[in-house]
Amino acid sequence: MEELEKIKAQLQKFADDRDWDQFHSPKNLSMALSVEASELVECFQWLTEEQSQNLSPAQLSAAIDEIADVQIYLLRIATKLNVNMLDAVNQKIKKNALKYPVDKVRGSSKKYNQYDQADESDDAES
Amino acid sequence: MEELEKIKAQLQKFADDRDWDQFHSPKNLSMALSVEASELVECFQWLTEEQSQNLSPAQLSAAIDEIADVQIYLLRIATKLNVNMLDAVNQKIKKNALKYPVDKVRGSSKKYNQYDQADESDDAES
Amino acid sequence: MEELEKIKAQLQKFADDRDWDQFHSPKNLSMALSVEASELVECFQWLTEEQSQNLSPAQLSAAIDEIADVQIYLLRIATKLNVNMLDAVNQKIKKNALKYPVDKVRGSSKKYNQYDQADESDDAES
Amino acid sequence: MEELEKIKAQLQKFADDRDWDQFHSPKNLSMALSVEASELVECFQWLTEEQSQNLSPAQLSAAIDEIADVQIYLLRIATKLNVNMLDAVNQKIKKNALKYPVDKVRGSSKKYNQYDQADESDDAES
Repeated sequence: MEELEKIKAQLQKFADDRDWDQFHSPKNLSMALSVEASELVECFQWLTEEQSQNLSPAQLSAAIDEIADVQIYLLRIATKLNVNMLDAVNQKIKKNALKYPVDKVRGSSKKYNQYDQADESDDAES
Repeated sequence: MEELEKIKAQLQKFADDRDWDQFHSPKNLSMALSVEASELVECFQWLTEEQSQNLSPAQLSAAIDEIADVQIYLLRIATKLNVNMLDAVNQKIKKNALKYPVDKVRGSSKKYNQYDQADESDDAES
Repeated sequence: MEELEKIKAQLQKFADDRDWDQFHSPKNLSMALSVEASELVECFQWLTEEQSQNLSPAQLSAAIDEIADVQIYLLRIATKLNVNMLDAVNQKIKKNALKYPVDKVRGSSKKYNQYDQADESDDAES
Repeated sequence: MEELEKIKAQLQKFADDRDWDQFHSPKNLSMALSVEASELVECFQWLTEEQSQNLSPAQLSAAIDEIADVQIYLLRIATKLNVNMLDAVNQKIKKNALKYPVDKVRGSSKKYNQYDQADESDDAES
């Protein structure tokens, strides 16, 4: 069994042991996931981008804690929706490769943003 | 090399090919992560918990897309902060086992919530 | 001067007194706003919808605290981007009235969601 | 009647006309609020702080749209929980003035962050 599937089984047992499965609807888990993602954002909100690349040991340790929490809730959602995470990620990487061809998006932040925004609305003019 | 490390390398190459690494500070990536987490929340916001457990194929497919996006940005952050995801998750599971002992938290939603809230403030329990 | 403009001035003074204005770029404030919004989500994540409509005094007081935090950061962003909040809201309500005509969207959750999703992608066929 | 109370009444009518009130539990509305807050984050995620202070007209217009959406959902939650927004904000500003006394927190980003973090855990004040 692959690593992530092992962790999913471990987390399911953890929830079962505590009778927490009843709270773990996909809806609720998505809320918990976004809360943990925001706790990671909180680690960086008043730092400059450069500071966020040079964390102190205490800052790094706090960030790792939140990263793990996000990963845990994401795997819980994957369990509840019967999603194989590696498959999902590999499919998305392929999609993104088509959506963002190197020769079209390579380069400046400006292009990057505009491409991104165009894509949100209607992907016109292709 | 383990699976997640392989994906991290793949995603790094994807960013390098597009010269996007310049935008991928931990600060910016945490923002992108939370945006993707919210797009998953959006899938469920007007559904009941029960409906969120019984998605249509179209709803499920949309949710899987967002789950993959969250996973991808989380791995990008892990790359930028030199975090091994499996180690981080395994350490967190151990921490949680100590923090939420089965005999103390098992049971009703009420206990679950109260325990959670007490823990946020000061864990007083006296 | 209208009420919200008064509060914006008060909050600006609060930041100035503490020399915090240097941290209050729109980018950083948007992060802080989303963190506060998630703290409100956290109040409700393990509650049923019905429980969220019947909060205990302690739960309500915690929620009000987060609501105020969201409002405060939202007004800070409005200050930084020179936005008059009442104008912005009134314009948006007009937009929404056109976007969601009563006879088209009135009714079931299903219609509500589908309309919402269609609107995200291409707003076709009007 | 004060301005915000007028808007709350308007938004209630908007929801009633569309029979949307059934979806507007505080739980669901908190989800929608955080989704809108993230859409504002999305406006800034790849911009530098400086760029976020110098938006193009199109970028500003997009940001204003999201700001209005956050305000609208926040007022919906206030309606559902019977919260007077001005009172809530004024009380919070008073709390914050006590929590962040000028002479203690004025100055560097470092102090600002440390104070903030200390406060999260136990307000030890060493």
